[in-house]
Amino acid sequence: MTDGAARLGRFHTPHGIIATPVFAPVGTQATVKALRPRDLEEMGADMILSNTYHLYLRPGDELIRDMGGLHAFMGWNRPILTDSGGFQVFSLSKTRKIDDDGVTFRSHHDGSSHRFTPEKSIAIQENLGSDIIMMFDECADPNDYNYLKQSLARRTHPWALRCIEAKTRSDQALFGIVQGGIFRDLREESAAFLSRLDLPGYAIGGLAVGESKADMYQVLDWMHPVLPHDKPRYLMGVGAPEDLVNGVLRGIDIFDCVLPTRLARHSSVWIPGDRLNLRNARFERDGAPIMDSCTCYTCRHFSRAYLRHLVKANEILGHILLTTHNVHFLLDLMRQMRSAIAEQRLEAFAHDFLSLYPAVEVASQ
Amino acid sequence: MTDGAARLGRFHTPHGIIATPVFAPVGTQATVKALRPRDLEEMGADMILSNTYHLYLRPGDELIRDMGGLHAFMGWNRPILTDSGGFQVFSLSKTRKIDDDGVTFRSHHDGSSHRFTPEKSIAIQENLGSDIIMMFDECADPNDYNYLKQSLARRTHPWALRCIEAKTRSDQALFGIVQGGIFRDLREESAAFLSRLDLPGYAIGGLAVGESKADMYQVLDWMHPVLPHDKPRYLMGVGAPEDLVNGVLRGIDIFDCVLPTRLARHSSVWIPGDRLNLRNARFERDGAPIMDSCTCYTCRHFSRAYLRHLVKANEILGHILLTTHNVHFLLDLMRQMRSAIAEQRLEAFAHDFLSLYPAVEVASQ
Repeated sequence: MTDGAARLGRFHTPHGIIATPVFAPVGTQATVKALRPRDLEEMGADMILSNTYHLYLRPGDELIRDMGGLHAFMGWNRPILTDSGGFQVFSLSKTRKIDDDGVTFRSHHDGSSHRFTPEKSIAIQENLGSDIIMMFDECADPNDYNYLKQSLARRTHPWALRCIEAKTRSDQALFGIVQGGIFRDLREESAAFLSRLDLPGYAIGGLAVGESKADMYQVLDWMHPVLPHDKPRYLMGVGAPEDLVNGVLRGIDIFDCVLPTRLARHSSVWIPGDRLNLRNARFERDGAPIMDSCTCYTCRHFSRAYLRHLVKANEILGHILLTTHNVHFLLDLMRQMRSAIAEQRLEAFAHDFLSLYPAVEVASQ
Repeated sequence: MTDGAARLGRFHTPHGIIATPVFAPVGTQATVKALRPRDLEEMGADMILSNTYHLYLRPGDELIRDMGGLHAFMGWNRPILTDSGGFQVFSLSKTRKIDDDGVTFRSHHDGSSHRFTPEKSIAIQENLGSDIIMMFDECADPNDYNYLKQSLARRTHPWALRCIEAKTRSDQALFGIVQGGIFRDLREESAAFLSRLDLPGYAIGGLAVGESKADMYQVLDWMHPVLPHDKPRYLMGVGAPEDLVNGVLRGIDIFDCVLPTRLARHSSVWIPGDRLNLRNARFERDGAPIMDSCTCYTCRHFSRAYLRHLVKANEILGHILLTTHNVHFLLDLMRQMRSAIAEQRLEAFAHDFLSLYPAVEVASQ
């Protein structure tokens, strides 16, 4: 079912069906920070993302394979999506050296030397046993046209073919990743190339890396008509509430982001249209919950005054309760959008929700 | 019901009935570290302890009073016991100065100067609104006979009278604290003095502060015949599994200790007769739970290998899951002892359990 460009979908995996549009909380090191699998299930999380780069380095993908795969290892029996490791190699590791065959890098833990290639990334993701695996791509500066053009031709696109070739498991869905920065012709060329490969899903990569919101939304507008309509579309690394709404409005089906967990660890919680920093002295005697209308465990049981105390006292329970609220906030927003699409009223819902945020002007097509 | 010196009891409070013998997890700063109130309820915790010294300094007992009291503030609707603040003043604060009226000390947070007296301790505990409150006593070197004798006569005993005098709330049970170190005559004198005050419960203080286990158990043996039989007996600050069993065998009804939560934060978990440090390399590929027979959330869902990974990666979930196991271990041990008393088989239970621990010889009476 569609409502404008927005779509309601069901993506089947060996660990269950994902109702889209969906937000996947991030469990970088085989745990969504401060939450138990049971808590995520109770909040209605359909899928989580975990990071190939981190798990390869620690505890090691072969150890996880030997312990029965990532689902068994971390006690999460619903779908898992793993990234390719590429983004983390480019953003976290030291002294990386990229060539047309792959990337050599040093671990951010101990400086040891490692090499990722498309084949290696797929092999690691097969050891992890995630339900959705991602092709290994190059994450380049979204504003450097000439570099991006070369990167598509010499790396991202040939690497997509090598990933398909390297894949041996039939129970994992390999998604392609459209690159091309903020340039329409490169994005369209990348989408066209990958579409021809008839993959089970397509990600839009290289966004949320510092470009403006207007640029990001415009890339999504360009992608809507050119990506296959019957395959899920995944906007990688995006999780600000207003971006989820703008993404769904533009046909995005899957999102992931560290934002809800990371903000929580910095004492920051979402309310519609704003973020509260609970360290602030104005919450010292505030007996209200974070959000009156929120049904999360935190808002049903605890005041801002108590949460502020926990945060000031650096108590683990502060991380737990703030993370619970932020993750619930996004999962609930996705639920509301799925209902709105089902009832053909997404535009009105989005208009109301986005009226609380600064306006973003996107150039017309 | 009794079984030897052990007793099965029910202590009534405004927030429910406590089935004794009971272990109270410690929530120093108005949170049992890494656990939600809901988790504690599910594990069957009947009561928690919270610390007067810490809450007075942060967030302040008047703030907690204004937010509806400690139960409402921290979202815990079952009984709470607060200590008097005395032990923390003696163990945590800097440059304390004790006189027969009270103690002046500096905050361990910011060095600010404060003064606790018996009246002040009661006033703070009345602001907190806990169900069981403790008299303000002096915690002195358990081996210094002359000092202890003076301390009983000039502080602990007169302070008990001042606490009773200062108390204004009728919904809180004020417990006395027997002091006297490792000396039988002082302990008996203190027990006799406090017994005459007809308090609703009696604590045995000044133990688990470095004396031998044999000395501690011997003090309990001395106390059994001289404390009122119909009042609960509380062994403060004791929580090693073998000490809980030895305490119950000697008529103790209430225990509290930071050990299960503190050990968990140091990667250490209990199994019968031993402790495992999950950082150890031997657990790297250990697919077994911490304890096969344990029914806690952690043991039902996660392997030692996964827990080791969490601990090595310094993940919050590691603290959560290890704390869950350790607290459950003690709560379950108390449940097993309550059943054993009810079925008149505590001696056999204790014999089996203690056979896993080093023998402790206690001098006969």
